[in-house]
Amino acid sequence: MFKIDLSKERLSQEEIKTLEEMWRRCARRIILSTTLAGCGHPGGSLSSLHMLILLYALIEHDPKNPRFPERDRVVISHGHISPGVYSVLCEYGYFPEEPFLMEFRRAGSAFGGHVEQSVPGVEWNTGNLGQGLSAACGMARALKLKEIPRRVFCVMGDGEQQKGQVIEARRFAVKFGLNNLCALIDYNRLQIGGRIYRVMPQDIAHEIKATFWNVIEANGHDFNDLYQALRRFVTGEVLCPEKPTAILAQTTMGKGISFMEDDEKWHGMALPPDLAKKALEELGFDPSEVDVLLEKRKSYEISFPVFPHEPEPVEVEVGEPILYGPEVKTDCRSAYGKALASLAELNNKKGEPPKVLGVSCDLEGSVKMTAFRKISPLAFHEVGIQEHHAATVAGVLSKEGFLTFFSTFGVFAVDETINQHRLNVLNETALKIVATHCGLDVGEDGPTHQCVDYLGLLLNLIGLEIYFPADPNQTDRIIRYVAKSKGNVFVGMGRSKLPVILNEAGEPFFGKDYVFTPGKADLLREGEEGTIIAFGSVMPQVLSAWEKLKSEGVSVSVLNMASLRPLDEKAILNAAEQGPIMVVEDHVVETGLGSLVAKTLAKHGQSAKLCLKGVTRYGTSGKPADLYREQGLDADSIVKDMKELLA
Amino acid sequence: MFKIDLSKERLSQEEIKTLEEMWRRCARRIILSTTLAGCGHPGGSLSSLHMLILLYALIEHDPKNPRFPERDRVVISHGHISPGVYSVLCEYGYFPEEPFLMEFRRAGSAFGGHVEQSVPGVEWNTGNLGQGLSAACGMARALKLKEIPRRVFCVMGDGEQQKGQVIEARRFAVKFGLNNLCALIDYNRLQIGGRIYRVMPQDIAHEIKATFWNVIEANGHDFNDLYQALRRFVTGEVLCPEKPTAILAQTTMGKGISFMEDDEKWHGMALPPDLAKKALEELGFDPSEVDVLLEKRKSYEISFPVFPHEPEPVEVEVGEPILYGPEVKTDCRSAYGKALASLAELNNKKGEPPKVLGVSCDLEGSVKMTAFRKISPLAFHEVGIQEHHAATVAGVLSKEGFLTFFSTFGVFAVDETINQHRLNVLNETALKIVATHCGLDVGEDGPTHQCVDYLGLLLNLIGLEIYFPADPNQTDRIIRYVAKSKGNVFVGMGRSKLPVILNEAGEPFFGKDYVFTPGKADLLREGEEGTIIAFGSVMPQVLSAWEKLKSEGVSVSVLNMASLRPLDEKAILNAAEQGPIMVVEDHVVETGLGSLVAKTLAKHGQSAKLCLKGVTRYGTSGKPADLYREQGLDADSIVKDMKELLA
Repeated sequence: MFKIDLSKERLSQEEIKTLEEMWRRCARRIILSTTLAGCGHPGGSLSSLHMLILLYALIEHDPKNPRFPERDRVVISHGHISPGVYSVLCEYGYFPEEPFLMEFRRAGSAFGGHVEQSVPGVEWNTGNLGQGLSAACGMARALKLKEIPRRVFCVMGDGEQQKGQVIEARRFAVKFGLNNLCALIDYNRLQIGGRIYRVMPQDIAHEIKATFWNVIEANGHDFNDLYQALRRFVTGEVLCPEKPTAILAQTTMGKGISFMEDDEKWHGMALPPDLAKKALEELGFDPSEVDVLLEKRKSYEISFPVFPHEPEPVEVEVGEPILYGPEVKTDCRSAYGKALASLAELNNKKGEPPKVLGVSCDLEGSVKMTAFRKISPLAFHEVGIQEHHAATVAGVLSKEGFLTFFSTFGVFAVDETINQHRLNVLNETALKIVATHCGLDVGEDGPTHQCVDYLGLLLNLIGLEIYFPADPNQTDRIIRYVAKSKGNVFVGMGRSKLPVILNEAGEPFFGKDYVFTPGKADLLREGEEGTIIAFGSVMPQVLSAWEKLKSEGVSVSVLNMASLRPLDEKAILNAAEQGPIMVVEDHVVETGLGSLVAKTLAKHGQSAKLCLKGVTRYGTSGKPADLYREQGLDADSIVKDMKELLA
Repeated sequence: MFKIDLSKERLSQEEIKTLEEMWRRCARRIILSTTLAGCGHPGGSLSSLHMLILLYALIEHDPKNPRFPERDRVVISHGHISPGVYSVLCEYGYFPEEPFLMEFRRAGSAFGGHVEQSVPGVEWNTGNLGQGLSAACGMARALKLKEIPRRVFCVMGDGEQQKGQVIEARRFAVKFGLNNLCALIDYNRLQIGGRIYRVMPQDIAHEIKATFWNVIEANGHDFNDLYQALRRFVTGEVLCPEKPTAILAQTTMGKGISFMEDDEKWHGMALPPDLAKKALEELGFDPSEVDVLLEKRKSYEISFPVFPHEPEPVEVEVGEPILYGPEVKTDCRSAYGKALASLAELNNKKGEPPKVLGVSCDLEGSVKMTAFRKISPLAFHEVGIQEHHAATVAGVLSKEGFLTFFSTFGVFAVDETINQHRLNVLNETALKIVATHCGLDVGEDGPTHQCVDYLGLLLNLIGLEIYFPADPNQTDRIIRYVAKSKGNVFVGMGRSKLPVILNEAGEPFFGKDYVFTPGKADLLREGEEGTIIAFGSVMPQVLSAWEKLKSEGVSVSVLNMASLRPLDEKAILNAAEQGPIMVVEDHVVETGLGSLVAKTLAKHGQSAKLCLKGVTRYGTSGKPADLYREQGLDADSIVKDMKELLA
């Protein structure tokens, strides 16, 4: 494998010649892969190509063992340049050429249209622009935490510098001293819409310098110039060696193919076969292979194996549960904070990299992460009011072998960042999103802060587990369960203090013997005439309604649905057999638990009289009890409606 | 009403005295309102107070007619300083003091915890930080388009400068020449988490200058200094008068109350009554009113009327529909582009402000807005890869009397910006979100670009209408319908070319006589044994399955559900009466139309054998037909499953 020794001031003529030959072979693959697929992004692939080729000649990497821990990382932020990236990875021996050329952009193949970890050598799936630098920050931070003296290179487009998340990432990189991070910007001055200075005027260098990064400008098609820039980063010969570095590489879209250069048309369009032949001729290759390969592709079966990319495992101790007695009235977020602090105490040892991390966005106190931070300052990440970046960085850390908790208010942890979580899920992260301040229960902060749609939004993320505890005991148990779970998990909670839920004997329902089990509803109260299904902050209202109903001789069951995905469908079907069902939730009724219950019944061909109670209009700003009353979620309304439902 | 003449170089002693008296009265209201409510944000209210008081003395405004068109606008971006804002609006006569002090932060009141348009004088509801400058940009742009020579002032916190959306807004303001826009930043150096330079180091002035704004620094508690800064903006005595201006006002949190100053504790906490009394004493007021008012509030009934804030109306001609014959095969986005172009031709007259606006994010060509731009260049807004800012700005424009279309790919128009749309909805905007590239139909761009959850996400926005046409004819009609509709509307479409849907006689189903009606399903095919309900890009597969089933002697109906909200529940219930129901959709099955159908049945106590087909795992990168086959959404799978369902 070709490797350049960084101790030299400049490249030798021989090295340049080797790189140019590599460039020629990779350019051929870019043309072929896109023309064979009939689509893709050759323009940017060619403009980033010199950078990519040189980069892999300088970094620590091993095509035979792409994920060995002591490697340098390359994150491709403008994921559409997959033809360029795959061509270079192929050149360095990560995989043979044939499956790439034959399978690129075909259903079921590892070689997707935007870079994906299914291809060996790819570190992070990207595609939605502006998230790659956040991912790179996460990796650079992980290396620092693990004290691995390696580097992260983030190759970026120039157009995507417009995304706000990019500057959030830049600031984070400075705050956390990520001088092991280098952004390489392919500055070809074109985006889909044409000249970047017409689409959105921006002085990229100026903006980067305003966040105190080192900026090095280079000719992105001159191997020696690029080498010097990269070498300056690696050797620390920059203005501020303790800061991250950006290399602004002046490039030309479509570089190297005369009729493609500097034309945005080729940003997202493959050359038709006749032009591809012309391009191959310009590169010195036999143009006839276009037809041969086109023919071969028709019958080529998808066979290249998807490269496994599970999260790095982390083994933690979850400790003993904290028991909250009948006399306690606390909020679930405090119970979360205590459980989290105990996880830190158990797992984050002095002198070793921490195992449990916390990420928050200027709400440390509100989300009760202060005790965690005090126990384990290195493990706590205050990311500021930069939720998009925070969600991505947290996702990356969760994949890098850290049990990572991301906590902020529901509207920021879910509504504002649902797309960042979607991309985390696509990247198979293992993030624990613990959102406080869900529901009308937020109270006086009003509708902008009342997250009444967390469930409706999160159900769209395929595979995400969704839990919502009903009291401090259940919170403690769920957090400890989650600490052991492998995938992406959401745990929601409200803001208010809640009484400890008791069984009919007056003992904590979620007591010493309680073990949280996903997909299992809790039968809090047994009755005969019907069932109230509920979860979370409305449970005190429901239990109070149950008491009132009981005193009036009405006997209903109360099911607590803390596990919203997986859902206890059997419990719902059993309830339907017993009688009418009422669902009560501090959530938009159209997309919440009521909807899941109704769907469960319909799917199983079962029916029951239903009353779905939830949020039907945005809340106002007031005390939760008053907001519940406004929307019929108070105990009296529940009693009244239940009696009607049973009548 | 107190007014200062801007022709003078500096304030007179008398004016300063008047302002100081106003400050004292407003500070009292800040203390009282928060202490009476037992919560709220007094710290930032006090640090922004000098700015707010002076601002309203300089601008064109009319408390008796808060929304007259020729007014200057004040947008409060850090919406939590509502106690300060309401205190100042009260001082200027927008409303009496009593309802504010008695109702602040009480359920059902106009006086919410974050500023809301329900209070006269408030221009935009804020609360989630970092969106206010985008809103102000929208207003400044609206004034420019209408050629109204007034100004927009955006009062902001310093912490929220961290949000990426803020720099997106700054660039937009420069691109669109918004020199009528002034940002006033309350630079008290504290956020909830403490010193801003500890939470997230940032050189605010440096970053703003890097986007080529004018920056003026001032003492935020010195009326004369602030006056000079504001006057420089108004008179254009800045470095670049053609650029927007930021005033960085050095302030102190809790200013004016000795024991509150420079302590972040008072960011989001009210003074307890004893400290409130001390504060009133410091301000020279009788402390005993705290107790009097606390008592009075107990029995005070919410009575202050909510200030109406409907979108400014816009009257447009929608013209004649374009008919696509049986021979045509085009994509719905091209039909959208043509309808949009005809709207521009009809309504955007030379020499007059345009009525129809377009907003896109570096995808003009893909979303087919090019014809629109060419007809009406002034009306087209290329916002670059800055979707968060674009969504907010588009929402504001839709409220300012422009029929505004916001178009980009589904993942950007919905997933990335759902929270911006949520805040638009809370602001009662009238935005038309037309998202292309929805579903697996995106094809080779792969899972990061395949928006398979638009319906599941958008159903969470209360009141939003949701449509998804099945062919170019229906697209044309829906767009023209939407042009006349008053509220927020989503129209989704795929990427691929679709055949024109024909009736059994071979004529276009959505032909000359077709009128789109919300909440009405289209019975594309009549059958007897069961019903397939579908919408959008899968319809050709469904109709092809119908043909195959028919040829095998199986007779089913096909219902097209282009109107997803409102939903044609009657048609679903009728279908259930007829027999089994299959739902086919290019959408996550758990949150899509299938879920709505199931819920409808359960809610109405009706049941039917159901088969819900949709996306069950993230797609790969390939041709839509192959992706459909991978998930069982192709005609053959539909035929097979329908036969099983009927068996």
